[in-house]
Amino acid sequence: MPHILVTNDDGVESPGLLALAQALRTIGDVTVFAPNRNWSAAGHNKTMHKPLRVWSVSLEDGSQAMTTDGAPSDCVALARLGLVKKPVDIVVSGINNGPNLGYDVTYSGTVAAAMEAAINGWPGIAVSSDDYEGPRHWDTAATAAVEITRQALKFGVPENSLLNLNAPNIPLAELRGIRVTRLGNRVYRDVLVERSDPRGVPYYWIGGDPPGGQLDEGTDLEAVSQGYVSVTPLHMDMTFRPLLETVRGWLSQAEPRAG
Amino acid sequence: MPHILVTNDDGVESPGLLALAQALRTIGDVTVFAPNRNWSAAGHNKTMHKPLRVWSVSLEDGSQAMTTDGAPSDCVALARLGLVKKPVDIVVSGINNGPNLGYDVTYSGTVAAAMEAAINGWPGIAVSSDDYEGPRHWDTAATAAVEITRQALKFGVPENSLLNLNAPNIPLAELRGIRVTRLGNRVYRDVLVERSDPRGVPYYWIGGDPPGGQLDEGTDLEAVSQGYVSVTPLHMDMTFRPLLETVRGWLSQAEPRAG
Repeated sequence: MPHILVTNDDGVESPGLLALAQALRTIGDVTVFAPNRNWSAAGHNKTMHKPLRVWSVSLEDGSQAMTTDGAPSDCVALARLGLVKKPVDIVVSGINNGPNLGYDVTYSGTVAAAMEAAINGWPGIAVSSDDYEGPRHWDTAATAAVEITRQALKFGVPENSLLNLNAPNIPLAELRGIRVTRLGNRVYRDVLVERSDPRGVPYYWIGGDPPGGQLDEGTDLEAVSQGYVSVTPLHMDMTFRPLLETVRGWLSQAEPRAG
Repeated sequence: MPHILVTNDDGVESPGLLALAQALRTIGDVTVFAPNRNWSAAGHNKTMHKPLRVWSVSLEDGSQAMTTDGAPSDCVALARLGLVKKPVDIVVSGINNGPNLGYDVTYSGTVAAAMEAAINGWPGIAVSSDDYEGPRHWDTAATAAVEITRQALKFGVPENSLLNLNAPNIPLAELRGIRVTRLGNRVYRDVLVERSDPRGVPYYWIGGDPPGGQLDEGTDLEAVSQGYVSVTPLHMDMTFRPLLETVRGWLSQAEPRAG
């Protein structure tokens, strides 16, 4: 049986985490190690400025889990550094309550945990479910996560890469399939909400509607909008190669000011 | 005069921020808007779960700056949402006290601020200085930052891309030049440090040596190690295209379990 490390960024009490752990137990031994609170939109963290606590909790089904006051990526780092003794074969993070589509991946704690896995030489998969509200269809995302985890264990994932899954929040019976996609162009619709405290001093919320995006063909945004699970392979190397020669051109034209 | 928004992740009191702001004032109007505390290794954040305060502080040279209890990327988002009234031409983040090389970019608050700029349609530049300790040669990084900012303002930076600068921590006179690079392969050397509190309960530090890495030719790691400033163009689209067909192959072989 493969050993699967399960984490998330909504916190150890999230029903999405439990649904994922239960589904993955059908194909492997599962260790759950997740933050003790919600870290949504917290990005890729490494907690070095303060010590971290680690303790055991029971999930709702009575199974044991590890938890910490660190971030999702800290869970993976702490496991890698030895707090999880049994060798890990793959890290699966989620199921996030809400999508991580397009450039969301750079903000996402769910994806950050899979990035931390990739950096540490473990295959990593991030799993998210569309919509932020209403009834949750965790089994749709969980079923796709099991399928992709099974394939990733069989075929392996290249060094420093990871897989980002997003499932539409629809009943499993209505799911149209799984599509391999690229990241789409996310459009954020944040607005500034100014309030005043009882002493008249202003404070600010970043508010507004959930992000939208362009439904270009072949993107994760389009696939999920059409009732498919999207699987987007990501690589940690963000170098924008088409710009290398352009910037070299800038420098050759510039006065040699800096050496 | 172009309008340059300057932020960082070490906090508004950091000498690296002041050095950058002062240097950029030679080519533009500078607005400083930076976090009120250190956010190192905090990743790309969007603070939506709590309101943010914004207030004015004086930098050491007497100039005014805006500060907030939000993250570096929140500074850029708040500016974009209207807290900075004057139209911004470019965002420059730094100078970070320590390098952001290779996969550091995914953890880095300095780079996250430039990513937030890119997502919001502003050119973004992240600036970091090598070494974590010892005498600081801010002017080396600042001089290169001015040069690259000038070029970026002149030629523009493509949508959803950004530039990541790292300067060696050496006197400006010893700088060998600026090289356009790709991200190198960072090697993290974290170790788990277990301690016990006065009640005998364990807690954990993520400790160890600063990250190293492979000095492959053409990488940021190599350039900085040889006394050059590295400029690495980054793109927000982390899609790993070579893996698209591979994963499609997995799915065509798989039983159609999920739709």
